[in-house]
Amino acid sequence: MSETSEQGKLIGVGVGPGDPELITLKAYRLIQEADVISYIANEQGVSQARNIAAQVLNNTEREQLEIPVVMPMCDDRSIANRVYDDAANAIQKELQAGKTVVFLCEGDPLFFGSFSYLLERIQENYTCLVVPGISSVHAASSALQSPLTMLKESFAVISGRHSDEDIIKVLSLHDSVVIMKAGRSRQRILTALDKSGRSHEASYLEYIGRKDEKIIRDVSGLEGEAGPYFSLFVVVRQERDRS
Amino acid sequence: MSETSEQGKLIGVGVGPGDPELITLKAYRLIQEADVISYIANEQGVSQARNIAAQVLNNTEREQLEIPVVMPMCDDRSIANRVYDDAANAIQKELQAGKTVVFLCEGDPLFFGSFSYLLERIQENYTCLVVPGISSVHAASSALQSPLTMLKESFAVISGRHSDEDIIKVLSLHDSVVIMKAGRSRQRILTALDKSGRSHEASYLEYIGRKDEKIIRDVSGLEGEAGPYFSLFVVVRQERDRS
Repeated sequence: MSETSEQGKLIGVGVGPGDPELITLKAYRLIQEADVISYIANEQGVSQARNIAAQVLNNTEREQLEIPVVMPMCDDRSIANRVYDDAANAIQKELQAGKTVVFLCEGDPLFFGSFSYLLERIQENYTCLVVPGISSVHAASSALQSPLTMLKESFAVISGRHSDEDIIKVLSLHDSVVIMKAGRSRQRILTALDKSGRSHEASYLEYIGRKDEKIIRDVSGLEGEAGPYFSLFVVVRQERDRS
Repeated sequence: MSETSEQGKLIGVGVGPGDPELITLKAYRLIQEADVISYIANEQGVSQARNIAAQVLNNTEREQLEIPVVMPMCDDRSIANRVYDDAANAIQKELQAGKTVVFLCEGDPLFFGSFSYLLERIQENYTCLVVPGISSVHAASSALQSPLTMLKESFAVISGRHSDEDIIKVLSLHDSVVIMKAGRSRQRILTALDKSGRSHEASYLEYIGRKDEKIIRDVSGLEGEAGPYFSLFVVVRQERDRS
């Protein structure tokens, strides 16, 4: 990591789970002060992270260059890696010119986020900073008004990308469990909850804090069809040990 | 939960891990709009949560009543429960009078926080809201500039209050592990890291984002003496699967 002041700085900034008011004061300030704004966008040019920060960007009087990183929807990591290589090059060109580049990240930058792949490509060459954001895990427990962890409880996060066996093992071992990226794996997760005897302790959430938010506290009536990428299950003990 | 508008509202507000700039815009607004501010304080009257929010409170022109909830340092849950009972009564008196009460919480309100105990005493009787905050877990990975989770990695949080056996089991099962409340258990945790072969993947952090912040990336030289309550270990895979 180089500290020379002529060079620019890359700052990964978490903008939270969706509600624009869940942006931190620090994120707000750094977005406004940035020379360059970058973010992941889909092939239609839509960026969830940029949408969350839209009001902050509109309030800036500064001329800001934007670098959208267009990520095609596919499971081929070699394509994703090429997109990250190209994005890292474009960002480093700005850093070399002494610019401050803010990369907008949904939720928290280092929690299942794309920023990790840019950071690992750039942090050896330029000064980098990371500003944490509210992750969907904490947004979910706030929306449910249900403690995520108390006292001696243990807590784990897995995703619908894990095997049935792994999901069941984690549900058996930990008091509180969040299962992220539940979209395409919804039926498998419902079966795993059933097999581990924890269906009655599970809630299901989609698009927390956005206008299409959905909260289902009784998953017994939930269909096994695929849901959106931004859906998750929260499982907490019904009887909690308070000793 | 009662929705009648003559009654007040209790709002648990996360103020983040320590840096006052990691307060969200929503927390900032709600703290300023509150009639009553409440928080946990120690026997000397010091409240970490209030300290983090001090600038926001100083910027308020509103007259705000403060209800400090003094929690003695002890492991006796019956004393803590009596303190929560009394605090819930004092807060409900204000809610009954139609006041909006904001309870300030370090980190996130529902992640190992005291707010859970007030919420469970009050949520049946009055309207409650929870505003998530940045937890120390995300503050730690940002401070380390190291991804907490990538792709198919699993993640777990345990605390120094768990048994040696449980800590070793979690270190063996999960890719990324945060061990909170490491203070008095530091030696036990160092031994567990050693036994599970993950000492070289562990970092140690104290008081993240505060003036006495300490970050140790090589725990092999860390002494086994007790550390502060707000200390934690972050363990991530050295070789990460990117496929």
